[in-house]
Amino acid sequence: MIESELSALLQSMNEIADVVTVGQYLAHRLVELGGPHVFGLPGDFNLTLLDEMLTVPGIDWVGNTNELNAAYATDAYARTSRGVAGLVTTYGVGELSAINGIAGSFAEDVPVVQITGMPTTAARNSGALSHHTLVDGDYDHFFRAYKEVTVAGAILRAADASREIDRVLRAALDESKPVYLGIPMDVAAAPVSSAPLKRPLRATPSDAVALDDLRTALRDVLFGLDTVTILAGPRIHRRRAESLLERIAGHAGVRVATQASAKSMLPETHPASIGVYMGQMTPSPATRAAVDDAPLVILAGTVLSDVLTGFYSQGFDLENGVELGISSARVGAVTFHDVRLEDSLTVLDEVVADLALSSAAPVEARWPYRTPLEATAADAPLSQNELWTIVQEWLPTNAIAIADAGTAMYGALELQMPVGTDLLASPIWSSIGYTLPATLGTSLASERRSILFIGDGAAQLTAQELSTILHRGLTPIIVLINNDGYTIERVIQSPRAVYQDITRWNWAALPAALAPDVPVLTAQVRTAGDLRDALGRAAAASDRAVIVEAHLHPDDAPPLLAKLGAIAGGKPAE
Amino acid sequence: MIESELSALLQSMNEIADVVTVGQYLAHRLVELGGPHVFGLPGDFNLTLLDEMLTVPGIDWVGNTNELNAAYATDAYARTSRGVAGLVTTYGVGELSAINGIAGSFAEDVPVVQITGMPTTAARNSGALSHHTLVDGDYDHFFRAYKEVTVAGAILRAADASREIDRVLRAALDESKPVYLGIPMDVAAAPVSSAPLKRPLRATPSDAVALDDLRTALRDVLFGLDTVTILAGPRIHRRRAESLLERIAGHAGVRVATQASAKSMLPETHPASIGVYMGQMTPSPATRAAVDDAPLVILAGTVLSDVLTGFYSQGFDLENGVELGISSARVGAVTFHDVRLEDSLTVLDEVVADLALSSAAPVEARWPYRTPLEATAADAPLSQNELWTIVQEWLPTNAIAIADAGTAMYGALELQMPVGTDLLASPIWSSIGYTLPATLGTSLASERRSILFIGDGAAQLTAQELSTILHRGLTPIIVLINNDGYTIERVIQSPRAVYQDITRWNWAALPAALAPDVPVLTAQVRTAGDLRDALGRAAAASDRAVIVEAHLHPDDAPPLLAKLGAIAGGKPAE
Repeated sequence: MIESELSALLQSMNEIADVVTVGQYLAHRLVELGGPHVFGLPGDFNLTLLDEMLTVPGIDWVGNTNELNAAYATDAYARTSRGVAGLVTTYGVGELSAINGIAGSFAEDVPVVQITGMPTTAARNSGALSHHTLVDGDYDHFFRAYKEVTVAGAILRAADASREIDRVLRAALDESKPVYLGIPMDVAAAPVSSAPLKRPLRATPSDAVALDDLRTALRDVLFGLDTVTILAGPRIHRRRAESLLERIAGHAGVRVATQASAKSMLPETHPASIGVYMGQMTPSPATRAAVDDAPLVILAGTVLSDVLTGFYSQGFDLENGVELGISSARVGAVTFHDVRLEDSLTVLDEVVADLALSSAAPVEARWPYRTPLEATAADAPLSQNELWTIVQEWLPTNAIAIADAGTAMYGALELQMPVGTDLLASPIWSSIGYTLPATLGTSLASERRSILFIGDGAAQLTAQELSTILHRGLTPIIVLINNDGYTIERVIQSPRAVYQDITRWNWAALPAALAPDVPVLTAQVRTAGDLRDALGRAAAASDRAVIVEAHLHPDDAPPLLAKLGAIAGGKPAE
Repeated sequence: MIESELSALLQSMNEIADVVTVGQYLAHRLVELGGPHVFGLPGDFNLTLLDEMLTVPGIDWVGNTNELNAAYATDAYARTSRGVAGLVTTYGVGELSAINGIAGSFAEDVPVVQITGMPTTAARNSGALSHHTLVDGDYDHFFRAYKEVTVAGAILRAADASREIDRVLRAALDESKPVYLGIPMDVAAAPVSSAPLKRPLRATPSDAVALDDLRTALRDVLFGLDTVTILAGPRIHRRRAESLLERIAGHAGVRVATQASAKSMLPETHPASIGVYMGQMTPSPATRAAVDDAPLVILAGTVLSDVLTGFYSQGFDLENGVELGISSARVGAVTFHDVRLEDSLTVLDEVVADLALSSAAPVEARWPYRTPLEATAADAPLSQNELWTIVQEWLPTNAIAIADAGTAMYGALELQMPVGTDLLASPIWSSIGYTLPATLGTSLASERRSILFIGDGAAQLTAQELSTILHRGLTPIIVLINNDGYTIERVIQSPRAVYQDITRWNWAALPAALAPDVPVLTAQVRTAGDLRDALGRAAAASDRAVIVEAHLHPDDAPPLLAKLGAIAGGKPAE
C-alpha cells in the first residue's frame, strides 16, 4: 500500500462508529494489518459478510476467477506488502478450492487469512442438510481440514467475535503463517464494539530476558572468530528485516550468503554478499566453500529444505551453529524462546559491531554465473542459456521479478538482481501455476513493475487470472516460456512419457478472449534477436501489460535445473 | 467404456504376469472397476507411479490442465460409467488442489479414488524437509485433510499394498463415496503378486437375513394402501438401478416422483412419472400434493438436502416413512443394516407386485412447466424463458445434458428430458465451474453427445479445461449463458454489489487461444431466432465441439431460481 493511502486509512479509523458489525470489524483490521485489497469470490454464504466488509472505507474488493487463484494472489499480496492479507470465499466449495494456496502460505511463511462465509449458526447447530456440505450434518469437516495448514482458527460466535478475530490475527502476526476464520451468516452482521480497533494489533513482543541471554550466548560463540558467516533465508524477508541484515553486513568481517528464495534480500552488489548457497547445487564453488568451511554459520531466517540445501548436502555443522528463527533462536543446543527474528537480528548487529573485526578476505563468487553468449545465427532457435543471459542484460532496477516453479525458477535463481529488484519464488511449496495469480497480488501491492517468468505448463493451471490482471489495467511483463510441456519433470524422469505433454495453446491470442477491450502488447519470439527486441518494447510499453511468448525446446533446461535433475535422478528427494 | 473394449480388457487380465508392480496392480483394478481413463497431472512424486500405471494395456492417460479440473472430470466420468474412477496427482500441491472436487464426490455419492504420488517411505519416516511439504517433518497433514472428505484411505506400504488397495476400493464400491490412496515413490514400483486380480472386486453383498426382514416389514407397511408413492433420488442413479425403478413403476398403482438431480432416472414420459418434487419449490402443484398427501412415501435413494426439499419444506411424514439407502434401509423406526439399494429395490418390486393394486388416479403434472412462448420481435433480446423453451424444443434424445449450478441448473431442472437423455447436475455440492471439466469426463465415458449449459461466471473458474476437450477431438455442445456475472447470487442478495460482476470475456475467441488447430463451431446469439439457428447448426455439426454464447440480461433468471431467491431471501438456508 502506498504510504499516503495508509495514513488516510488510519485517519479514517478515528471516525469509526462505536458499534460496528463483525464483518466491518474484520475489514478494519485487514486494512490496518495488510492494506486495502481483499481477494476472493462471492457465494451465497458470504454475501452478507461481503456486504458488511465492503462498507468499510478504503476496502478494495478484488474479484478473482477462482478460489485457488485468489489464494495465490493473496499470498503474493501479503508477501509484497509485508502485511496480513485476507481472502474471502464461500463455505465448502470455495474454501476447499483455496486450500492448496493456503498450505503454500504455511510452507513459505506468509500470513494470510482464509475467511469463510458459513451457513448460519442455527444450521450448523442443527446439522441441517445444507448444500455445500457433505449432507452428513457435520459442519466442521472443512475447519478440521484447515487445521492441517493453519496455525490458528475459529468459527466465530457473536458473543466474542472481535476477541477471536484479534486472537487469530495475532497468531498470523506472531508466526507469519496462515490462519482461518469461519464466519456464519448471522455472525457476519452481528454488532460488536469498535473500541478494540483503537489499539493497533501487534505481534507478541520478544521476551527481554531471553533476548539478553541470547546476546550473551552470541558473544560467547562468536568471540575469537575472524569472520562472521551468515546464511540468510526467506524468513528475513517475511519479517521485513532486510535493512537489519544490510546493517549487519556493513560491519567488517561479515560474509552473507543467501538462500535461493531470498537471493536479493541483501543487494547482490553488496561487498559482503557472497552469493546464493544451495549445498551441492550452489552455483559458485567459492560460495560453497566459504559457507561449508566456515567455523560457524549463523542461520538467519533460513529454511533447510531439500531444494534450498541441494538435497541436504550442506557441509556446515548444523548442531553447533546458530539459528535465528521467526519467533525463537538457538545457539548450539540451547533454544531461546519468544525471541522474534527482527530482535535477534538487532542483537546480532550489536554483538558483531562489538567484535570490531578486520575485513574478511573476498570470496570470488561474482555474478553472472552463466556462460557468456556466443554470437548465434540470427535465425537460430532461442536457447535457455540465451534467454536468461538476455534477461540478465535487460532486467530493470526497482522491479519485482517473479518466477514459477520449473525452468523459470531455476533460470531466475542464477540472475543477479539489479538494485531494488527482488525475486519472488516458492522453492519450498513449488506449486506450479502459483505465479500468474501472484502477479495480480504483487501488481496491486506495489508500484514497482512486476516481471513474471512462467512456463506454459504452469501457466495453464491458472491462466484465467490473466483476465483480472488485464481488466484492472495492471501492467506486468509476462515472459511465457513455451516449451511444450513440463520440462522440469522431463529433466527428472521419463522425458518422452505421454504425461509430459500438454495441449498447445496460442498464448498471444489469449488476451483477445479474456480481455477483448484491453490494450495488451504481445510478442512471439523464437530467436535471441526477437527476444531482445520484444523485451525492449515491453520495457517501453509501461502503460499496458505485455506477454512475450518465448518458444524453447522441450528438453532445454537452465544449468541449475539440469543439476537438480541429475541429483533427483540419483536420489529421489529423500 | 464401450462393451467391446471392456471384454478385450478383461481378456487381457488373463495374460497378466504373476508379479506386477503396485502401480500396475492399481491400474488393473481401475480398468476393471471404472474404465480405461485415468485423469490427473504429473509431478515429481508421481512420475514413477505413472510410469508403472501406464504400462498396463488399455489405460488411457488424460492429462488435465489443473488438479481441480481433473477431480471434476473424474467425478463425471465415474457418474457416467457408473464405475470407480481414479485421478492421479502429486503430493501436497496436487492433491490439495483437487480436494474440493473429491468433497463434491462425497456429497454427491460418487466413487472416485484420489491417488497421490508421495515422497519415499524413507523421507516420510525421517521427516525430511522436502518440497511440497509444510517443512515441519509431518507427512500426514494432507492424508488427514482427506479423511474429512473420504470414507477410506491408506498410505501404502510394500508389504500389504495390494490388500490395502482392495480394501480401500471396496469401501468406494460399498458406500459409493470417494477414497484416498497415498503411494510413496518406492512403493509404486514395488513388486506384488497379481493373483488377487483374478478375482474381480465386488461390493459387500447384502445381508440375506436383513433383506428377508425388510421384505416382511415392507409387506406390513404397504398392505392396504391404494397407491404406492415413491420419491426417487440420485442414489438410484449411482447404483445403476434405474431399470429396477422402471420395473417397479410398471406395476399398477405406483406413482414415482423424482428429486431434481434424478429427474430423468425414470423416463419422464413414463405413465407412472408424476414429475419433480422439491417441497415448496415443486414446479407443479399437483405433484407436490400427490407426494405430500400420500399416506406413505417410499424414499428410494433420496437425499433430503435444502435445495432438493425446497428448504426442508417436504410435507410428508418422514419418521413413519420408508427409506431405501445405498447400504441400509429403514421402515419407520427400524433400520435394516447391510442392505444394498439395488437389493432393497428388488425386494420392493416383489412386494409391490404381490399387492396387485389397481391403477392410480392420474396426476396432472405434465411438462413443460414453462409459459408457452409468445412471438417476440426478431431483434428482441433473448430471455431466460425463451432460452429454455427453445432448448426444450431442440434437446435431442440419447444425449447427456449437463447443467452447472446457477441459472443453468435451475433452467434445466424444468426441462422435460427426451428419451435416453439424462441430466447431470450437482444440487448438493453446487460447486460452480464443475461442469466444464465434467463435460470432458462424460464425453470420454459415453458415446452419447454431451450438451453443457453453463453460466459465464461459472465457466471462468475452470475455463482452461476446454483445451483438453478440444485437443481430444471431443464434440460436446456448450451453451454458454453469458449474463455478465453471478446471476444466481444477484437473485439471492445485493444484485448491484461490485462482487457480482465478473470480467467480460469474448468466449467465441477462446478456442483460437486454447486449441488453435482444432475446428470448433462458435456462435454468439442475442435473439431467439439466432439461438434456434445456432442450436440447429450445432446438432448438425456432429464432428466437432460447438460453443453457443447466449447473451442474457444479468437480472433475468429462470422461474425456479426466482422462487429459490425469494425463499433464500426470507430464510437463509437453515
